[in-house]
Amino acid sequence: MGSDTENSEHRSGETNPGEAERFAVLTSELATIGRQFYERGWVLGTSGNFSAVISRDPMRLAITSTGLDKGALDASSFIEMDEGASVVRGTGKPSAEALLHVAIVRVLGAGAVLHTHSVWSTVLSGANATNRGVEIRGYEMLKGLEGVRTHEHREWLPILENSQDMSELSERVTQLLRENPKLHGFLLGKHGLYTWGANLREAKRHVEIFEFLMEVVVRARSLA
Amino acid sequence: MGSDTENSEHRSGETNPGEAERFAVLTSELATIGRQFYERGWVLGTSGNFSAVISRDPMRLAITSTGLDKGALDASSFIEMDEGASVVRGTGKPSAEALLHVAIVRVLGAGAVLHTHSVWSTVLSGANATNRGVEIRGYEMLKGLEGVRTHEHREWLPILENSQDMSELSERVTQLLRENPKLHGFLLGKHGLYTWGANLREAKRHVEIFEFLMEVVVRARSLA
Amino acid sequence: MGSDTENSEHRSGETNPGEAERFAVLTSELATIGRQFYERGWVLGTSGNFSAVISRDPMRLAITSTGLDKGALDASSFIEMDEGASVVRGTGKPSAEALLHVAIVRVLGAGAVLHTHSVWSTVLSGANATNRGVEIRGYEMLKGLEGVRTHEHREWLPILENSQDMSELSERVTQLLRENPKLHGFLLGKHGLYTWGANLREAKRHVEIFEFLMEVVVRARSLA
Amino acid sequence: MGSDTENSEHRSGETNPGEAERFAVLTSELATIGRQFYERGWVLGTSGNFSAVISRDPMRLAITSTGLDKGALDASSFIEMDEGASVVRGTGKPSAEALLHVAIVRVLGAGAVLHTHSVWSTVLSGANATNRGVEIRGYEMLKGLEGVRTHEHREWLPILENSQDMSELSERVTQLLRENPKLHGFLLGKHGLYTWGANLREAKRHVEIFEFLMEVVVRARSLA
Repeated sequence: MGSDTENSEHRSGETNPGEAERFAVLTSELATIGRQFYERGWVLGTSGNFSAVISRDPMRLAITSTGLDKGALDASSFIEMDEGASVVRGTGKPSAEALLHVAIVRVLGAGAVLHTHSVWSTVLSGANATNRGVEIRGYEMLKGLEGVRTHEHREWLPILENSQDMSELSERVTQLLRENPKLHGFLLGKHGLYTWGANLREAKRHVEIFEFLMEVVVRARSLA
Repeated sequence: MGSDTENSEHRSGETNPGEAERFAVLTSELATIGRQFYERGWVLGTSGNFSAVISRDPMRLAITSTGLDKGALDASSFIEMDEGASVVRGTGKPSAEALLHVAIVRVLGAGAVLHTHSVWSTVLSGANATNRGVEIRGYEMLKGLEGVRTHEHREWLPILENSQDMSELSERVTQLLRENPKLHGFLLGKHGLYTWGANLREAKRHVEIFEFLMEVVVRARSLA
Repeated sequence: MGSDTENSEHRSGETNPGEAERFAVLTSELATIGRQFYERGWVLGTSGNFSAVISRDPMRLAITSTGLDKGALDASSFIEMDEGASVVRGTGKPSAEALLHVAIVRVLGAGAVLHTHSVWSTVLSGANATNRGVEIRGYEMLKGLEGVRTHEHREWLPILENSQDMSELSERVTQLLRENPKLHGFLLGKHGLYTWGANLREAKRHVEIFEFLMEVVVRARSLA
Repeated sequence: MGSDTENSEHRSGETNPGEAERFAVLTSELATIGRQFYERGWVLGTSGNFSAVISRDPMRLAITSTGLDKGALDASSFIEMDEGASVVRGTGKPSAEALLHVAIVRVLGAGAVLHTHSVWSTVLSGANATNRGVEIRGYEMLKGLEGVRTHEHREWLPILENSQDMSELSERVTQLLRENPKLHGFLLGKHGLYTWGANLREAKRHVEIFEFLMEVVVRARSLA
C-alpha cells in the first residue's frame, strides 16, 4: 500500500497491492469521464475507448473492455493489461484499439489516452482526408493544449487513414508520434480523435479542446 | 417462475408467470431507454415507440401504449400484445405502428424493435426520398451494426414512403425485409427510423449508430 | 374543496378554495415544464411565459410572473390573474404578454398557453417574415397536433409582426384566431412561438411538435 | 456580520467578517452558474472565468482560480483579489484575464463579470473581425439586456483583437468602455464573450441573451 508502484519490481503472475489501488482510483475516474462524454454524444453506440497508466515498468494500463455502452461505465467495465495488450486484471477483452493506446504511452510517455468518436471529428476527418490533416490556428482555445502559450500557435491535427489491422495502424501511429513528438492528438479518417495527457485531467481537457475546435472549424467553413 | 416461457404452451385467456416477470424486466429497460432518447430529442411530442419480445410461440411483445410522453415512461406505459396487436396484459392501446414491430420480429426474428423520430432522420429521409434510400459507407461507426467487421462496409438504409394505412405499410415492410434480410434498419419518409436487434441492448446500440451516422451524412453534405 | 370552480359564482375580492388547489396543481406542472424547456434552451434569459386556466367564469389564469429565470421556476414564480391581467393571487407582475394569453384562451377556449423563444423559431420567423407565415406539410410529426390524422396535413404557421404594444398585438392575435380557429400556433417575428392546448399536456406536446418541425424546416433548407 | 462592507474602512492585511460571508455566498452562486454553463458547452476545457464584486472600496472581487475544470467548481475554486489582481483570500492564482474583470468593474461599476467561450462566439468573432463588431437588431431577445425596452434596439457587440498581453488588453477594454458606457458586452476575436451586470443574476441573464443571439445570427446567415 502506498509504495511507489512505478519503480517496484514486477514479478510475473503477481500484481502489486499499490497497483490494485491505482487501478481502482483510475477506473473510477475513467468511468466518470466516459459517462460525461457519452452525455455529450462523443462516444455513442459503444464507440470510444479510454485508458490510464497504472505503472510504466512494467507497463500496465487500465483500459475499457471492448463493446461496452459508455453511458453505463463502472469499475467492472475496465481491465488491466500489459504492453502486449494481454489482460492481467479483471475480466473482458481490451478494446480492439488497445495497441494504439500502448503506442501513444510508449512513444510520448503519456499518462492517459482518450479516444472519442464525435460527429464533428467524423465530419472533419472525412472532409480533410486528402490533406492528411487540418491546421488549426488563431484560436484562444488552443491555449488549453499543454505547452501552448498563445492563440497564434499553429496546431497540426494529422489524419491517418483508418484501418482494421491494428498492428499495422499502431506502427503508423508510432512512426507519426516519433516524427512529431509535439502533437497533442490525431484523427483517424471518418473515425475519431485520439488525444492524451500527462494525466487523466490533462487528457480530458485535451478532448474538450479538440472537440470544441473541430466543431468551430466545421461551422466556420459552413458560414464562409 | 423461471420456466422457459418461449416454449410453454399457450392457453388462451391465461398468461404465464414467467411472462409477467419478463414483461416487468423488459418494460423497465424499455422505459429507461425511452427516457434517454427523449432527453436527446429523438422522441419528442409522443413520437417514437419501443418493443421487446417476451415470447415467440405464442408471440408476445411488450410495447409502448400509444400517445405517451416518452420523457415520463414507466411500467404502466406499456402493454403486452399478441401478433395481431391485441392487448393481453395491461391497459391502453398499442402504438398505431404495432404491426410494423410484429413484421420485423416475425421476418427477422428480432428480440427488440425501436422507432425513433429525430430531426436528422426526418431531414435525411425528406432529402433522399427520390433515391429510395441512402448508402452509408466508409465510417468506422458502421462497425457498431451487428455483424459488420470493417468501416469499408456499405450499409443501405432504405426509405419507405410514409403511410397511415398500417396493414399496407406492414406488408411493404415484410416484403422489404424478406428481400433484404441483412438490413439493420429503414426509414419512413419524413417520419423516422426503425431499427432492431437480437435484444434490447443491441437495438439501443443500433439506434445510436444510425442517429450518429444520419447526422454525419447530413452535416457532411452541408459542408460539401 | 372539490366544488366545480368553473361554474361557481365569483365574489369580487374573494377566491374560491377549489381555485387555490387548482392554482397549486397547475403551477407545479407549469414549473416542471418550464424547467424542462429551459434545459433545452427554449426559454433562455427570462424569455418565454406559460399559463393555464384555473376557471373560465370568471376567467382566472395561472401565469408566470415577469422577468424570471425559467431554470428556477417554483410555485412562487406564478400569479393568478383575471381577464384584464390584474393579479388576484400571489405577488409579482404578470408577464408583459399576459393579454396574448387571455386572447388565446378567450377566442379558442384553450386550457393552457405556452410561449417559447428558441433559436429555431427566431431564425425561421426572421427568414419568412415577408411571407407572413410558413406552411409545414408532409411530416409525420404533424400528427402530434390535436385533430391532425395524416402526415399529408398542411399546417399554416402564421408570423405576426412583433410589437411592444400589447393591446394592439392582442387585438391582432384575436382577429387572427377568429379568422383561423383551426390554427395550432403562431410565431411573432424574430421573437418566438405561441401554442396552446385543451390542457397543459396537450400544450406541452404542441411546443415539442412545433420546435421539432421548425428545426427540421430550417435544416432542410440549409441542405437544399 | 451584516455590517456594510462596501463602506467599511480597509485595513491592509485584514479581511472583514462581512466580506468572508459575501465571499461564501457569491462563490457558491458563481460555482452553480459555472457548472450550468459547462453543461451547455460554453466553458469547455478550463476556458471561461467568472467574478463578482465583494466590496468596492477597497475593491475586492471573488474570481475563479486559473486553469480549472468548470464542470467541477466549488467554493475552493475561487480566490478573492484586490484591484491589482493580488490574492487576499484563498489559495490559487486568479484567471490570467483578471485585469479585464477589474477594468469592467472599475469603468462601469458592474457587480459581476462573466466570460464564456462558446462555439458560436468563437465562430462569430472569427467571421466578423474585419468589421470590428456585429450589430444585432430587431430581435425580441434584446429586451433581456438591461435597459433595453424594444426589439427595435440596435446592440453593437464590439470585437477586440485578441492578445496575450493582459495589461495592454485591459487598457483597450478600459478605453472601449469609457467611450461606449452603454455596451452590454464585447467579444475577443476567436476567443469569446465578456458580459456583466449590476449583479450576478443580471450578468447570467446577459450571457444567455448574447449566447442565444450569437447562435441566431450565425444560423440566420447560413440560411441566407
